[in-house]
Amino acid sequence: MTSASSTPLQDMIPECGAIGIDIGGTSVKGGLLLPDGTRHVSVPLPTNLDSGAGVFLDDLAHWIGALGCTCPMGVGVPGVFAPGSRKLTDSPNLKTLEGCDLAQELGQRLGREAASIRVGNDANLAAFGEQWLGAGRGHDDMVMVTLGTGVGGGIILNGRVFEGPAGRGGEVGHIRIHEGELAPIACGCGNHGCLETFASASAAQRLARNASLPTDLSQLADAARQSAGPARDLLETIGMDLGRGLAQILILLDMETIIIGGGFGAALDMLKPGIQEGIRERDFTARMPQILEAELGSDAGWLGAARYGL
Amino acid sequence: MTSASSTPLQDMIPECGAIGIDIGGTSVKGGLLLPDGTRHVSVPLPTNLDSGAGVFLDDLAHWIGALGCTCPMGVGVPGVFAPGSRKLTDSPNLKTLEGCDLAQELGQRLGREAASIRVGNDANLAAFGEQWLGAGRGHDDMVMVTLGTGVGGGIILNGRVFEGPAGRGGEVGHIRIHEGELAPIACGCGNHGCLETFASASAAQRLARNASLPTDLSQLADAARQSAGPARDLLETIGMDLGRGLAQILILLDMETIIIGGGFGAALDMLKPGIQEGIRERDFTARMPQILEAELGSDAGWLGAARYGL
Repeated sequence: MTSASSTPLQDMIPECGAIGIDIGGTSVKGGLLLPDGTRHVSVPLPTNLDSGAGVFLDDLAHWIGALGCTCPMGVGVPGVFAPGSRKLTDSPNLKTLEGCDLAQELGQRLGREAASIRVGNDANLAAFGEQWLGAGRGHDDMVMVTLGTGVGGGIILNGRVFEGPAGRGGEVGHIRIHEGELAPIACGCGNHGCLETFASASAAQRLARNASLPTDLSQLADAARQSAGPARDLLETIGMDLGRGLAQILILLDMETIIIGGGFGAALDMLKPGIQEGIRERDFTARMPQILEAELGSDAGWLGAARYGL
Repeated sequence: MTSASSTPLQDMIPECGAIGIDIGGTSVKGGLLLPDGTRHVSVPLPTNLDSGAGVFLDDLAHWIGALGCTCPMGVGVPGVFAPGSRKLTDSPNLKTLEGCDLAQELGQRLGREAASIRVGNDANLAAFGEQWLGAGRGHDDMVMVTLGTGVGGGIILNGRVFEGPAGRGGEVGHIRIHEGELAPIACGCGNHGCLETFASASAAQRLARNASLPTDLSQLADAARQSAGPARDLLETIGMDLGRGLAQILILLDMETIIIGGGFGAALDMLKPGIQEGIRERDFTARMPQILEAELGSDAGWLGAARYGL
């Protein structure tokens, strides 16, 4: 194994530490990671864009400043960056920041060079975090799928974040898995049949409500764990659709490791039989990847950003 | 541009030249490529495995020997090689060679070290050939899709062949594009709904026959070129299904260039409107890749193998 995942932290991180920032739609998470593995996690900063990008960036810089100013730093944002560019070109959840050169803006406010701040897509960096310090340790080729409001994805190839030539790779949630009558629900993207409409946390809640089952997904998973019955059946059905989507990834990318994260990922033990069935249905080879639950929770994003900054 | 695609041939190829071999199900193609770009193409050798692997490999080595013995050499085979291994693990069309260490076998017979012979998957190497000397020149991230008996695929990422961690990446033909009543034909893999059952040359012939149209695909394309009508409609329908499959690649890999090869690829001018419609239907972003016709024809395989050997 020659990947960074096997390099000890103290050989990668300078003495002052590495800063990771994860800008989400509702709050900013971040922290400082020290070479001995200690994590100083900040109290999250609300993502308040009501007064415009400038005020938010002032607050953000102030908040980051409290972590240290000169350490290597990476920033994850839900949106698209063209590789080699630092400009956020497309961010449905953070429209106000579109067109913004975040590294430049933060660099100016923090009194450091823009080139020393690396910005990237949040889902990609969460995958990078899991690959570095979480369930993906030692797996140089993996896909992380995040089951939240939508279905996010990040692809790691050969130990590196795969961004795609225009920075828009890994949109796992919009893989088409059904059509026609089997795909009655419109996805946020405008299409029908997207994986996200079948296997996100929101989709699971909708399906649970329709079946008069608990819409609290941890309660739903507990009910499924307790006994066979409609809760277990529903999670198997959802898992199967997730597996059908994952099969498309396997056919193209031949991944040996898939990591499931996001709030609904905690039900992986109950989703797994379905996932495996869905993969077997749609992947013509006999391969079956390892399917692992993410370990870092909501820290994956900022830890991956810190790794990216290194 | 920093890729090998912009490196002049004379800086890549030694004076003696580079040998490329493309072992197909019915014949072996190959040749010697000189630093000035001259191609010495051999008369194809029939892939005759009736007397067993040993006799075939003797013939093959003799045939290769006529090209030169010590030049860098690559060999493409329709099958799976685990990265880092030279052993053919799975080759439905060349069962007799399964388990064979081709580099070892050929090296012994040619009096050269096995390590100096590089073996790889034929579809991947054809993509590499097009990226090096064909339609993909200057495109470091591209997918090549070959429309033949099946639908083959090869993925180039960052100027390198993407093989997948177990050597089974890029199985474009088995992307699922339809289900249920829309997918009545079983694929060779046992599944229904695979792209290959809608957009391969064989599928096009079947669909043409069902519509009482010419099953000779160049005649079919000519009829479509001449006037609007059922031939043009059929090629648009087939193109649209191809586009639906390509959309899944774009969603995951964000490719900016797609190259269409294989015999049926010659109808690309008539398939393209449908391809673009299919991509627009299933890819939620507004991106539209360049869709180019392959330029090297059946030489792509051996030229890509030669490149791989370098």
